[in-house]
Amino acid sequence: MTNLDQTTWFTEVSDRDGSAFSLRINKKLEEKQSPFQKVEMYETTDFGNLMIIDGCTMVTTRENFFYHEMISHPALYSHTNPKNVVIIGGGDCGTLREVLKHPAVETVHQIDIDAVVTEMALKYFPELCESNNDPRATVMFDDGIKFMADAAPESIDIIIVDGTDPVGPGEGLFNHAFYTSCLKALRSGGILVQQSESPLMHMPLLVEMRDAMQDVGFADLQTLPFPQPIYPSGLWSVTLARKDENFAGFREHDANSANFDTEYYNTGIHLGALATPNFMKRAFNK
Amino acid sequence: MTNLDQTTWFTEVSDRDGSAFSLRINKKLEEKQSPFQKVEMYETTDFGNLMIIDGCTMVTTRENFFYHEMISHPALYSHTNPKNVVIIGGGDCGTLREVLKHPAVETVHQIDIDAVVTEMALKYFPELCESNNDPRATVMFDDGIKFMADAAPESIDIIIVDGTDPVGPGEGLFNHAFYTSCLKALRSGGILVQQSESPLMHMPLLVEMRDAMQDVGFADLQTLPFPQPIYPSGLWSVTLARKDENFAGFREHDANSANFDTEYYNTGIHLGALATPNFMKRAFNK
Repeated sequence: MTNLDQTTWFTEVSDRDGSAFSLRINKKLEEKQSPFQKVEMYETTDFGNLMIIDGCTMVTTRENFFYHEMISHPALYSHTNPKNVVIIGGGDCGTLREVLKHPAVETVHQIDIDAVVTEMALKYFPELCESNNDPRATVMFDDGIKFMADAAPESIDIIIVDGTDPVGPGEGLFNHAFYTSCLKALRSGGILVQQSESPLMHMPLLVEMRDAMQDVGFADLQTLPFPQPIYPSGLWSVTLARKDENFAGFREHDANSANFDTEYYNTGIHLGALATPNFMKRAFNK
Repeated sequence: MTNLDQTTWFTEVSDRDGSAFSLRINKKLEEKQSPFQKVEMYETTDFGNLMIIDGCTMVTTRENFFYHEMISHPALYSHTNPKNVVIIGGGDCGTLREVLKHPAVETVHQIDIDAVVTEMALKYFPELCESNNDPRATVMFDDGIKFMADAAPESIDIIIVDGTDPVGPGEGLFNHAFYTSCLKALRSGGILVQQSESPLMHMPLLVEMRDAMQDVGFADLQTLPFPQPIYPSGLWSVTLARKDENFAGFREHDANSANFDTEYYNTGIHLGALATPNFMKRAFNK
């Protein structure tokens, strides 16, 4: 078997999955311990720059587009008129950039607990931060859970939870209290969308999350799978939850005539992601 | 960084991709050097049994369904009446099993060069081999390139090329001579389908393959992406090539009323896989 020389490879071991993923690196760029987590930056040989948080691969230059597009555009195009958007987490600013591509959007508040993540993104993923100075954007460093608890009722159209796994600072983003805050803060027609782990590897967690969303009163759920090469299994998902019943599909015509570029997302991809693989259907219907 | 103890992990390094993928193992089950390649079998902690050929991860119990379903059902349902099917490679017999689920199929010839692969599959993936004794199936161990060169003209409805990467024994399955044999052997309405690597990581190879298919006279090409967790990037593809022009879509009604089980494939997944991500469209249109 092959031993990876750990001076030229970064390896993330996923103990819960029995798998590990490695990227070959040219050099370490920087490391910083924030009050919340350790952030490391590497330059890889084939994936561009790489951000690691507490040992977990988070973002690479080469393939972050799958995630950032799929956590943004399906939700934005599923809302009839998304004016006010909140992003919880999202410190690399890639989601913010995608959201701001939508002309209907009037305000976006991004609340990430850790300013160091954005500091690193500004240095090593400047393309993800290119819309940070859009006058519609407010980039805050604060506790997203508290932000949602304090939010004015019926003041937000879309809440995007772009957080880490449900451990560490991200843990409180997966429970009933948080989802209750979100439901209350959404206007009628509002949508909550959250990264929801790997449908292949983490189905119990995904089902638990969907159950919690339904328990607090979200009316319709859709879990959309998509490729995410650097995360365990390479298959990831977002889950959309509607405040109201009668899921209205999405603004397919607007998506077709979008005047901005995407690398992965298009109308067909959106429709395709709404087709649930059989193994997921079975797990959801149990 | 993390050093993986190579007594408890199997690691495949993909030099061309600058990435590596590891699975945690309980034990090595068997190793056999065939005249063509080295076949190793492991029991993993989370993915069931694992087959390695010449150091590359090939099949696991847990997630082979993505690949086997996607190399079979889209092609089978895209043909109006697929009676005679040939599988080149496919020694683990998982593709054979999927093909035989289709009632229209009258004969399937599987030609893998290496009997050791099937010997191992019978022992460690018996579920993939459960249709090997179907009276419609002929399992042969021979040179698939020669088989296709010698095939009677216009005698086959679907050719499935379920081979390894274009190195070693699989190399001759990616060139003009082989595709010319395939085109000649297909009946009118016939379809060639081949695993076509990772659209994210191996686009030059994929484009070269599509060009070669078109050069020899295949009329319509469709590259369908799908998740494949153990292969580099976790995003893989199959490419369908039609003998005749005027691509006729697929038998959606039949797919909807299929009386067999699948884990991944359904009509929505098929339609979704026909939606090409933007980055692939751009590469194909260059």
